[in-house]
Amino acid sequence: MTFAMDPIAFAHTPFSDTTQIPRGLGARHDAEGILQLKPELAPGLADIAGFSHLFVIWVFDRRKGEPELIACPPFDNRPHGVFATRSPMRPNPLGLTVVELLRVDGAQLHVRGVDMLDGTPVLDIKPYLSSVPAERLRRGWVGEAEARVAAKPPNGN
Amino acid sequence: MTFAMDPIAFAHTPFSDTTQIPRGLGARHDAEGILQLKPELAPGLADIAGFSHLFVIWVFDRRKGEPELIACPPFDNRPHGVFATRSPMRPNPLGLTVVELLRVDGAQLHVRGVDMLDGTPVLDIKPYLSSVPAERLRRGWVGEAEARVAAKPPNGN
Repeated sequence: MTFAMDPIAFAHTPFSDTTQIPRGLGARHDAEGILQLKPELAPGLADIAGFSHLFVIWVFDRRKGEPELIACPPFDNRPHGVFATRSPMRPNPLGLTVVELLRVDGAQLHVRGVDMLDGTPVLDIKPYLSSVPAERLRRGWVGEAEARVAAKPPNGN
Repeated sequence: MTFAMDPIAFAHTPFSDTTQIPRGLGARHDAEGILQLKPELAPGLADIAGFSHLFVIWVFDRRKGEPELIACPPFDNRPHGVFATRSPMRPNPLGLTVVELLRVDGAQLHVRGVDMLDGTPVLDIKPYLSSVPAERLRRGWVGEAEARVAAKPPNGN
C-alpha cells in the first residue's frame, strides 16, 4: 500500500542550508516566508485569511541517507525514538510546522515561523483550530532535556 | 515531482462509517483507539510515553470522487476554500489529528481523540510540543459559523 502525492505549493524561506535553521531548546522560529501555491489551486485559499495560524505539511526533500528509528536531536545528548522527535530521518519524510498567517496575496501566503529549506515542497495546508491547554500538555524528554541543559549547558565548561 | 509513502501504522477506531464520526461545531472527539505500528518500527517509539499529546498524519484512504477546491463543511451552510477546511476532498488526501496518548504497549499506542475510520493508514506520528496561546488564535469562518449557528441553529424551526 503506497500513496503518491504531488506538491500543492513550494515554500520560499531565508534558509538555503539546514545549518541556518534555528534548532534546539528555546530556538525562536520567527522567520518570515512565502508559501507559493500552484496557481490553479488558488481558489482553495478562499476564506483562509480569517485564520491566524495554519498547519503546513511538507516534505524533507533534501535529506540524505536512510531513515533511522533512533534519532539524536541536536539539542540533547541522548538518543530518542524517531517518533518522539522531529528528526527528518523518519520513515516518511514528512515535516509539520505551525505558521502564523500574515497576509494572503493571490496564490501566495505570507507567513511567519517557517523552519524549512527554501524551495521545500508542501503537500497540504490546514487551518489551526484549537490548542491543547498548557496545563494538560506534557513534553516528555524535551522538558527533561531543558532541565538538564539549564543545569549544565551542553557546550559549557 | 511525486512523493510515495507507505503507512507506518494503522488506526483501530470505533468508526466503520464516516457518519459515525462526530463532526461539526462543538463535536467532542474523545473516542479511544489504537495506533498499531508495523512491528519492525516499534523501536521508533522509544521515549514517546513522556508526551501527553501526539500529531497523527494519516490518509483519507476511502474518500470517493475527485478533489474539490471549494468545500462545504457539514456544520456550515456556506462554502469555503478547501485549505480553510478539514475536508477530505483536498488535493492530497492527508488528515491531521491531535490525540492524547494514554499508554504505550509494545507497537501499540493507545490514544484518545481519534476521528478517522477504522483501518486508516497512518504516515507519521510526531510529538505535540507547543500550543498557540488562546489569545493569539483566530479561527476565521469557524468562529463566525459558531456565532451564526448559536443565533439560529441550522436545523432549528
